[in-house]
Amino acid sequence: MSLIEDLQWRYATKKMNGNTVPQKKLDYILEAARLAPSSSGLQPYQVFVIANKGVQEKLKAVAWNQSQIIDASHVLVFAAWDGYSEERIDTVFNKTMDQRGLPHTTMTDYKNTIWGMYEPLGQDWQAQHAAKQAYISFGMAIAAAAEQKVDATPMEGFVPDKVDEILGLNEKGLKSVLILALGYRDEANDWLVNMKKVRTPKEEFITELS
Amino acid sequence: MSLIEDLQWRYATKKMNGNTVPQKKLDYILEAARLAPSSSGLQPYQVFVIANKGVQEKLKAVAWNQSQIIDASHVLVFAAWDGYSEERIDTVFNKTMDQRGLPHTTMTDYKNTIWGMYEPLGQDWQAQHAAKQAYISFGMAIAAAAEQKVDATPMEGFVPDKVDEILGLNEKGLKSVLILALGYRDEANDWLVNMKKVRTPKEEFITELS
Repeated sequence: MSLIEDLQWRYATKKMNGNTVPQKKLDYILEAARLAPSSSGLQPYQVFVIANKGVQEKLKAVAWNQSQIIDASHVLVFAAWDGYSEERIDTVFNKTMDQRGLPHTTMTDYKNTIWGMYEPLGQDWQAQHAAKQAYISFGMAIAAAAEQKVDATPMEGFVPDKVDEILGLNEKGLKSVLILALGYRDEANDWLVNMKKVRTPKEEFITELS
Repeated sequence: MSLIEDLQWRYATKKMNGNTVPQKKLDYILEAARLAPSSSGLQPYQVFVIANKGVQEKLKAVAWNQSQIIDASHVLVFAAWDGYSEERIDTVFNKTMDQRGLPHTTMTDYKNTIWGMYEPLGQDWQAQHAAKQAYISFGMAIAAAAEQKVDATPMEGFVPDKVDEILGLNEKGLKSVLILALGYRDEANDWLVNMKKVRTPKEEFITELS
């Protein structure tokens, strides 16, 4: 199947049946999330994988009681950096240069340029910028799940501060941004499963300037 | 090829050779962007497709003179709504209900719930929220380009206000968010093409709670 067919197949599953996603498929989905591009390659986010009904119950309670959180096989929480710092940027760039066999100084000018832009914009702006990068990775996980015929429910409907508390994210310099519930559709009980997928029509979505 | 292989193949192309991406592949990439999921299905973004060297020159001048903007076959500008409104939300939801053969009132409670959340958060927050949704669509376009073996350079390095001006986005209630240059790599002159792709190692990227 092609990506387009995968995207047509998927939908925001509203009711899951509790079946387990095999480890191999889970690993595949996480690998796609990991390979996503990000601004300057900083990858200012991490993924928390929750397969623990006790923790899932706690998350559900701060996520509008969405049943998928408990009926999912695994719940992925995408958490982004709470801001940038020279040290955080240096750490990533130095590792990149090590992997490429180049001196750390190769990236110094570039580091100074981006930090020179980011620092004055403040920590709130930085956290938003980091969060945006996580959306790309989130998209790749959604596409990968569809390719693996694993159902997924993308969620923004939760109280981030509460999720941060449950997962101890503040101490790690992270903030929860997105949740992806992974599992399998309960066809008999999902009101959305047979509804037509609706998107902005092409002619409204695309403007060509040529 | 699988999505993982596609993501391993792609890289942020630094030098393009000016070759043209066939219409069929372009359409495929845009269709993937269109099929991306978004919060409440609002799809608060559009894509502008630029294949006009005059416009590309103007864009390049406000995008750090990145050569890919002129050497690309097509430049995609992802533009997000500058805010939400009851009218905008109603328009999308009503169309969705029409497509599904359901009365418009089906979505009234849900509309009231989300507008009740979004309105007090103000237009800046709303524009950021809309922009974030565009990042998912952007990710799907990147994945689709890789699947089609079309090179792509994701870009945040431009002056959004200037791009808005060039494309007349303000009048449309939109703000430029992201640029994706589509074309083909110039292998002989691209410093990045043979560099190792570096990502956060799995053990740092993923935390399992089970």
